Amino acid sequence: MLRIAVAAAATALIATTALAQQPIALRDMGSFHVGGRHIEITGQPIKEIVFTPGGVPAKVDPNGTYQVEQMYSQYFLVQNRKGKLPLLMWHGGGLSGVTYETKPDGKPGWMNYFLRQGWDVYVSDAMERGRSGWTNQFKGEPVFLPLGDPWERFRIGPAGSWSPDKAKRKTYPGTQFPIEAYEQFMKQGVPRWVTTDKQIVAAYIALVDKVCPCVVMVHSQSGTFGYQVLEARPDKVKALVAVEPTRGGDRSKVASIKSTPIAMIYGDFAKDHPRWSKIRQGGVDYAGVLKAAGGSIDVIDLPDAGLRGNSHMVMMDRNSDEVAALIQKWLAGKGFVD
Amino acid sequence: MLRIAVAAAATALIATTALAQQPIALRDMGSFHVGGRHIEITGQPIKEIVFTPGGVPAKVDPNGTYQVEQMYSQYFLVQNRKGKLPLLMWHGGGLSGVTYETKPDGKPGWMNYFLRQGWDVYVSDAMERGRSGWTNQFKGEPVFLPLGDPWERFRIGPAGSWSPDKAKRKTYPGTQFPIEAYEQFMKQGVPRWVTTDKQIVAAYIALVDKVCPCVVMVHSQSGTFGYQVLEARPDKVKALVAVEPTRGGDRSKVASIKSTPIAMIYGDFAKDHPRWSKIRQGGVDYAGVLKAAGGSIDVIDLPDAGLRGNSHMVMMDRNSDEVAALIQKWLAGKGFVD
Repeated sequence: MLRIAVAAAATALIATTALAQQPIALRDMGSFHVGGRHIEITGQPIKEIVFTPGGVPAKVDPNGTYQVEQMYSQYFLVQNRKGKLPLLMWHGGGLSGVTYETKPDGKPGWMNYFLRQGWDVYVSDAMERGRSGWTNQFKGEPVFLPLGDPWERFRIGPAGSWSPDKAKRKTYPGTQFPIEAYEQFMKQGVPRWVTTDKQIVAAYIALVDKVCPCVVMVHSQSGTFGYQVLEARPDKVKALVAVEPTRGGDRSKVASIKSTPIAMIYGDFAKDHPRWSKIRQGGVDYAGVLKAAGGSIDVIDLPDAGLRGNSHMVMMDRNSDEVAALIQKWLAGKGFVD
Repeated sequence: MLRIAVAAAATALIATTALAQQPIALRDMGSFHVGGRHIEITGQPIKEIVFTPGGVPAKVDPNGTYQVEQMYSQYFLVQNRKGKLPLLMWHGGGLSGVTYETKPDGKPGWMNYFLRQGWDVYVSDAMERGRSGWTNQFKGEPVFLPLGDPWERFRIGPAGSWSPDKAKRKTYPGTQFPIEAYEQFMKQGVPRWVTTDKQIVAAYIALVDKVCPCVVMVHSQSGTFGYQVLEARPDKVKALVAVEPTRGGDRSKVASIKSTPIAMIYGDFAKDHPRWSKIRQGGVDYAGVLKAAGGSIDVIDLPDAGLRGNSHMVMMDRNSDEVAALIQKWLAGKGFVD
């Protein structure tokens, strides 16, 4: 049996490697901004700004109309399409669409994985993050994360395991996060506000109205956005893959979304984590309410599926392809793959 | 003669359309962040932040080490390579790498053009912009541009031609800018500082050290960055295509960069524009100094090449493919195309 398993694993590995070496053929690629609105600023003095040191000064009148709250989305449309609908990938808090691109350790991430599986992919930067731009008209202050903060909050290591000294950092046993690339991961961070959920959701709805019906994949903070958009557009979001979502949906709206299959996926070390155990339990409880109303939701704890050691940043973990394969299989099982 | 010219133009058009319809085949695609540094913040109180409304609060200690000043770059490596070196595309002020992606009118931009011509392409967001992230530790205030500001500064229309009322906006005669997509263009804007050139250049140098020898294409503000990086790495920047650069290089350093061919490209309406006439003349004067030192630089006014109506945002103008073809021909003439 062991010999057969090893042989099968070797065959799978060769197949995966061959796939990874084939060119990615795209019938088109591009980007756009959606949503947002115009606001008026008045009563400010005219400024003279030297945009380039030593350059020619330009007069800028800061009064007038401003474009705010739009969202950026980049798309890659595959030549040989197998996913029946576009796959929209939404990142978590303090990050951008880069989450799904090359992993911090330099290996291919989920965007390339799903492209190679034949999905048309749309990767967005949430309103206010990355290429979506931001405005000084948001309420409150932006949040900047210190280098060590995600180490424990994203379940790479338990409480007290972070150290500025790389040699002294501890991890959960068997962590899949590529800890040698942690500093590189932190280069992906962007500031975020905690007052802008409404505008973020509005922009995601504008995206869904433009490119769906579709499958939406969310991670962490965008879990709440994914559910809100699904509740607003149950006819357009045909499946929701919620990877480590920080929240479930609105329990009063479960009846309206019961025709959309949902996967809720949690990594390792969540059940015993002081904060994540509560977050996960909230998701499990929500799933119960949705199921009772006739909805379709699968709560998948990766360790129960034989995948151990996953951090909150599942798509950056060493075994990210295996988790992606689990998602691909789930989507195929729901009829979304040709 | 006219009949022959029309026939030739029709053949070229068919060839271009056929090329645009072929899939884009990539041997790889991905992204990374380069450069940046760690800084220390001390003496700040610990905060409790509810990252998701209704979610589980998290304690965040804002003291400690922060990652700052890194830069994002996304790359697309073509299957059938014809450009001999990677092509690095750097955007202008208040914008991001989106500049080179799909044009505001929804048509393909220069990134796709040069990919289809067989170039490996790296499109970056300058340090502080877009997916590079930013920090509240930059000096001074960020600049936000009102909706109308670029209309005149980017030479879509002359002084006094902007109006919030679309029907009342005026343009230069024969402008190539897709004015119906002006509002869409303004969605691409991101805040920018005017105090961070040093850090921006440091990050571009880190990029060049990682992926070059290469050809660097710059636009507007990144003209000054392109020259500074060329002066710092004359052995690695093998050609510089400066599209509407706001400055030339350092006249005291011309001897050190004379082996790198440079194209300086200006659109229409620049010679008579109160601000652009000075900017352009600065470039022309610099070119004279470089040539006198034995350097190789071509100043190309697009109207002199038969391309009329170009705004500052050349790569978004209706005739952007024609300008790209001019650049492609220049690069081929310098020996950079197989």
